[in-house]
Amino acid sequence: MTIGILHPGQMGAAIAAQARSRGVRALWCPDGRSEATVHRAQTAGLESVPSLPDLLAQADMVLSVCPPAFAEDLAREVARHGYNGVYADANAISPERAQRIATILPNATVVDGGIIGPPPTEATVARLYLSGPQGACADVAHLFTGTLVEVHQIGNEVGKASALKLSFASFQKATRALAAVSHALADHHGVREALQSEAERMGSSALAQPGYLPSVAARAWRWAPEMQEIAAALHEAGLPTHLAEGAKRVLEQWNDDKDAWNIELDEVFKHLSTANDETDR
Amino acid sequence: MTIGILHPGQMGAAIAAQARSRGVRALWCPDGRSEATVHRAQTAGLESVPSLPDLLAQADMVLSVCPPAFAEDLAREVARHGYNGVYADANAISPERAQRIATILPNATVVDGGIIGPPPTEATVARLYLSGPQGACADVAHLFTGTLVEVHQIGNEVGKASALKLSFASFQKATRALAAVSHALADHHGVREALQSEAERMGSSALAQPGYLPSVAARAWRWAPEMQEIAAALHEAGLPTHLAEGAKRVLEQWNDDKDAWNIELDEVFKHLSTANDETDR
Repeated sequence: MTIGILHPGQMGAAIAAQARSRGVRALWCPDGRSEATVHRAQTAGLESVPSLPDLLAQADMVLSVCPPAFAEDLAREVARHGYNGVYADANAISPERAQRIATILPNATVVDGGIIGPPPTEATVARLYLSGPQGACADVAHLFTGTLVEVHQIGNEVGKASALKLSFASFQKATRALAAVSHALADHHGVREALQSEAERMGSSALAQPGYLPSVAARAWRWAPEMQEIAAALHEAGLPTHLAEGAKRVLEQWNDDKDAWNIELDEVFKHLSTANDETDR
Repeated sequence: MTIGILHPGQMGAAIAAQARSRGVRALWCPDGRSEATVHRAQTAGLESVPSLPDLLAQADMVLSVCPPAFAEDLAREVARHGYNGVYADANAISPERAQRIATILPNATVVDGGIIGPPPTEATVARLYLSGPQGACADVAHLFTGTLVEVHQIGNEVGKASALKLSFASFQKATRALAAVSHALADHHGVREALQSEAERMGSSALAQPGYLPSVAARAWRWAPEMQEIAAALHEAGLPTHLAEGAKRVLEQWNDDKDAWNIELDEVFKHLSTANDETDR
């Protein structure tokens, strides 16, 4: 069995490494990707091929794990090469976009996927939710039997897995943005300690652990576009988009902190300041 | 010692009852209040007086515990009668509004307060945070020694207690709005069970306990104006207001569910629908 991974970041490489541990061959195409990505793919045991057509010609199955903004273009590129195998899109995209990807790839069998949890390592298990044609879902599931990727098939309809992923991410990520705003407000007034003790007392874990806020700022460049997809999903479902849009706007304050894992908490708060932000009120 | 309570709702009556348990006389003015409020005040052992001037003439100390939108007008009314005792505003108002209240009452000694936690009963303890002139804070604290109202003095500056209250409420209340939106989205796509199991697995308590969502809808009429104060507080601090404004908009979807404690979860989700809402996109 040979799979192709488009475009392996941290999550994609970790997922592919799990399939590799089952003896699956995993291909990727390093064309135009960063050195860090190349290093990560090598560490995960992925085999590089020179071009997308090469990858598609050899792969029995393609997994797309990329930033949400690229998911649809990537599917279109794959479609141009007439790909007709199983195409699993495991990105944080709206259900409607997932369904559009299925129509973009009429010759392929499209499976909708949603990954929840951190990248799988010895210490952590990721969940891969799948929805779509049952046989193809089973084929994808089979890649990960006995690995740290726990697969759940949740229906025959493309869109359900994406809906689940976004429902969860909406809460999980926006609460972290909320926690940052709360701590920044308390900090402004010199009452962070009291806020911390209330958070601990009320068992509000996301609020009680401000130590992870620098990592939120560092990942905000990925999370903001995900909030955009969440807003789209809510709009499609006739639900209010304001919280998702609000979280997106807050996360965008940290755009310049991309991958700045060692940023100080003070800086995290300072970058939330709207004083530097002319587009804000 | 005699205190006056303006205007005791559920929280105000419960707080006053704690002071009563220490032998403090507690006055209130039932003029224009609902039968439910009258009943609650009687149960809490409050003594009724015919008018605000009567209350102010007899009270050594006044506690304002009312919806945030009324806090400033109430202070103005009290000022008109030349009140010159201790005035503790324990409302969920922005720090700037708390400071404005201090200037509205130049003859009184204004203490800023913030209440966190549910109304104190045998089973629960409320925290009353105070900031302002030290002597007056100590006088307020003294009312509650050994009761279920745990008092914390957090500084000499009017505004700090309000800032703490709003920092906490911003997170606590907006996460509940977020949880409702997530469950409604998952419900729309038939994946609520999977969302629930992920919430339990990730320890996201607000998301894992959708059973409390009807009580959020029932209280949203109070929470939305609190979100307005939070947005004001964030604006004053130069922090992004989008999440607070987003939470306010979501909570407003439940305006018609005021005190509808027995509403079904399905209805809670349905009322989030923007289809009935012409002002929404």
